[in-house]
Amino acid sequence: MADKGVLFIVSGFAGAGKGTVTKQVVKEDENIKLSISATTRDMRKGEAEGVDYFYITKEEFEQKIKNRELLEYAKYGDNYYGTPRDYVKKMLEEGKDVLLEIEVLGAAKIKASLPKTVRIFVTPPSAKELKNRLVSRGRDSAEDIEKRLNRAVDEAEDIDDYDYLLINDSIEQCVKDLHSIIEAERMKVKRQLPFISRIKKELAELNEEE
Amino acid sequence: MADKGVLFIVSGFAGAGKGTVTKQVVKEDENIKLSISATTRDMRKGEAEGVDYFYITKEEFEQKIKNRELLEYAKYGDNYYGTPRDYVKKMLEEGKDVLLEIEVLGAAKIKASLPKTVRIFVTPPSAKELKNRLVSRGRDSAEDIEKRLNRAVDEAEDIDDYDYLLINDSIEQCVKDLHSIIEAERMKVKRQLPFISRIKKELAELNEEE
Repeated sequence: MADKGVLFIVSGFAGAGKGTVTKQVVKEDENIKLSISATTRDMRKGEAEGVDYFYITKEEFEQKIKNRELLEYAKYGDNYYGTPRDYVKKMLEEGKDVLLEIEVLGAAKIKASLPKTVRIFVTPPSAKELKNRLVSRGRDSAEDIEKRLNRAVDEAEDIDDYDYLLINDSIEQCVKDLHSIIEAERMKVKRQLPFISRIKKELAELNEEE
Repeated sequence: MADKGVLFIVSGFAGAGKGTVTKQVVKEDENIKLSISATTRDMRKGEAEGVDYFYITKEEFEQKIKNRELLEYAKYGDNYYGTPRDYVKKMLEEGKDVLLEIEVLGAAKIKASLPKTVRIFVTPPSAKELKNRLVSRGRDSAEDIEKRLNRAVDEAEDIDDYDYLLINDSIEQCVKDLHSIIEAERMKVKRQLPFISRIKKELAELNEEE
């Protein structure tokens, strides 16, 4: 892909606040787009089609796998989750930056196929705070919370493969911080090569005129 | 050095506005310190001791060279310019980030001895704008301006070695952008290893308790 935009992967512990933060950043900057995953799992209360996921049938999902329409996919329990390739590709080519919220295994797969991807890991300020958030959001059973905390131990092992660590202490600050990362990545010299070529040429011409 | 802070080198074409931008960023964030260079050149109108430079004699400067008190130094015309090592080292060890405004050759020397240094190149949005700024600040003779534009051609060749390109279109935006770079660098996983170790440990302990 001759991409002009940057693909940002956002991973993190369940309960870290990834969803809230990414949705807010996208709301504040029209040059940043959120990639919406496809899933075969049921829609949960408070979720909406095309906002949280594209909800499709198992047959539709397996057709997408066959047609190579997914950047990556995985199966958890009985449900598929995957990233539609077309939308991400189109946005990057148009020069938009894309945020993709995805768990650590999916992140590794995407980084392998798109090495310019920037990876951000979101974490609460402490393990205790992670547990508090899981309990207080009241969405998971005690057993589910235990599973999620168990999974967090494994996920933490992969943080070192990420580029940035985003500590979500307050949503407002965390949104600002994510914005700073995106802005900084846009300013990387390796992403500014067309500007650099142009100003070199202009300087040479200006000196010839003298 | 077991540094907790980050050293940021800020280079750029003469007239790009480096000085204005770095001074403003330091004013806004007490965790960012500006490294002040030593020089043997005369103080210019509007400059102040310990703000723009430490103004010292040639003999004092050469003594500092002998004592290895400089992180780097160079001679331009009859004048020495150099970076006192102690201040930079002390601030980094205290966990402050340090901004060091320096030309491209000095930047390369410092990067060689301190490889974790982050390098930022400041440029106006176009070569024409660079010339306009040099003319309108009214500090240089026509001959000096020509020299500076000539030098800019050489300096531009080194932009590719920098990490970030900071386009100074408006001072206000440029200050924000420099802040974003500094914030983002602080969030790099490689600079957050103590936090990562701690949360891994906490998560393991939390799971044992269950």
